Amino acid sequence: GVGRNVTKHQLVQPGHLQKSGRQIQCYYYYIQSSILPGRFEEEFIKMRMERLQGWLCRMCRHPVVSNSDVFQLFLTYRDEKEWKTGKRRAEKDECVGPMVFSTIDPEAPELDIIEVEQKCELFSRFTKEMDDGVKDLLNVGNIHWKRCTGPLRKEYQKIGKAFQNLSSVFNTSGYTGEATLTDALTAAGKTYEEISQIVAEQPRKDLHFLMETNNEYKGLLGCFPDTIGVHKAAIEKVREGDKMVAAGKITTQDKVTMAKRTSIMCYSLQAEMNHFHSNRIYDYNRVMQLYLEEQIRFYETIAEKLKQTLGQFTTL
Amino acid sequence: GVGRNVTKHQLVQPGHLQKSGRQIQCYYYYIQSSILPGRFEEEFIKMRMERLQGWLCRMCRHPVVSNSDVFQLFLTYRDEKEWKTGKRRAEKDECVGPMVFSTIDPEAPELDIIEVEQKCELFSRFTKEMDDGVKDLLNVGNIHWKRCTGPLRKEYQKIGKAFQNLSSVFNTSGYTGEATLTDALTAAGKTYEEISQIVAEQPRKDLHFLMETNNEYKGLLGCFPDTIGVHKAAIEKVREGDKMVAAGKITTQDKVTMAKRTSIMCYSLQAEMNHFHSNRIYDYNRVMQLYLEEQIRFYETIAEKLKQTLGQFTTL
Repeated sequence: GVGRNVTKHQLVQPGHLQKSGRQIQCYYYYIQSSILPGRFEEEFIKMRMERLQGWLCRMCRHPVVSNSDVFQLFLTYRDEKEWKTGKRRAEKDECVGPMVFSTIDPEAPELDIIEVEQKCELFSRFTKEMDDGVKDLLNVGNIHWKRCTGPLRKEYQKIGKAFQNLSSVFNTSGYTGEATLTDALTAAGKTYEEISQIVAEQPRKDLHFLMETNNEYKGLLGCFPDTIGVHKAAIEKVREGDKMVAAGKITTQDKVTMAKRTSIMCYSLQAEMNHFHSNRIYDYNRVMQLYLEEQIRFYETIAEKLKQTLGQFTTL
Repeated sequence: GVGRNVTKHQLVQPGHLQKSGRQIQCYYYYIQSSILPGRFEEEFIKMRMERLQGWLCRMCRHPVVSNSDVFQLFLTYRDEKEWKTGKRRAEKDECVGPMVFSTIDPEAPELDIIEVEQKCELFSRFTKEMDDGVKDLLNVGNIHWKRCTGPLRKEYQKIGKAFQNLSSVFNTSGYTGEATLTDALTAAGKTYEEISQIVAEQPRKDLHFLMETNNEYKGLLGCFPDTIGVHKAAIEKVREGDKMVAAGKITTQDKVTMAKRTSIMCYSLQAEMNHFHSNRIYDYNRVMQLYLEEQIRFYETIAEKLKQTLGQFTTL
């Protein structure tokens, strides 16, 4: 289903998928393949398709989002009419925004406000610090990528050219037995030119996936400040509860209900965080393994090429 | 013998060793070990000792220089008195400069002036072009050396720090089963810090010898323009021979003698070039093998370290 949609839309930008159980606001634009050539480079389109694929897979893994009507509709609709009908139905849903919490029953003892606040603080600190860590890694990765495709590529190319150039000069010596050295030296030069290519192409084979995963998490982490803001506002409200009761603005029963709702919100956020952590551990484990595997292949490939070149030299 | 002298002088700068059979002009200064500390860094002294060792080995390999009285004296003298006596004896030698050619008998048919000129031209072109090639390689090598010890070292260090930093953040999640990822991620970070060190230390293990050999050849090649200048001047003189005979400045017999001497000079230069080529092929073969061997070890060491790190990740 997902694959079909990617092909259908070619370039889809899901905006915010508010991960509530009842409603998904799915803003997106799509550009028909007919207007693509000339306006977007192949590489760019490929990247956007990969990212959409990744995003939809992530939504499919989410226990609540994956089962929601509107997400199912997005994946399965066959024509514009089906999509519009479904969209109109979803728009009638009144259970949007924080109202979604009214449909949740944690089936667990109510958390007191101090516990709620501590948990919220932990999630806030964690997501902020992970955001910094992810951005730091993206930054270093970007610099390394540019160095591999730029200066490093040129440098290995120059080393290769210098060996080949020296070999050409040696070839003009007119001295007998020169070929023993010059053939091997030319081979060494060509090997370093090949290494130059391998170095330049490597980031697309390993760093790419590390960067994409971190980019995805940068996007996810960027949504947390708003989400956590809603929870912090609720906590603030509960903290003001006693004053509001005293001022006759709310009843004691209202205050009890507010505290209960905040506990429910906290359980929901905890569930979301558990899901986030579980995915994060899986994703980083997988991408680090992929990165290291490709890095090993990279160093081994070069070592193998150099071994073959070394074999061309004769021990005199 | 050579080793002993290196130790004795600590820092010797042989200036020009005019490679004639009868006389070696050996200008050098030496600095006693007592005044070394503070003025010269250990690294610098080590490099100069290595270069002197290399230079003396080269002189020992030269069939004429190695057997000359003054070179033997330089290697074997026990005190200042022996050195001064030998030096004074050498200074009385009248067979210096181009006069040395009068002691040489090529035992081969005389070369006509066109052959002499062609050979001289070939040597001139070869040494000039090799000089350019060597300087080009030294230039590229210097840039690569600096990149390895500078930006590349820092970059791998930053990658390592970024992994370790992310691992520290993950450790604060409070989520169970976090250690599976964080331990491996910390290990990966440390591995990239180790790689940073390996990259920074690598040039001293391989590029160093490639650079030293090329530096030595840069020095040798720098002597050729003067040497070839002497030969070109002789050729010029022979070319003017007919005019000089016509002007009564020299006899026909003088002209014949001049041509014969030029042929002898050419054979001497050819012998020197043959010796140069033979050494060059040996030296470049050896240093390229050493360079490639160390490069292979470098890439294999990193691949091995990464393999060990990969093993720490669990396939979830």
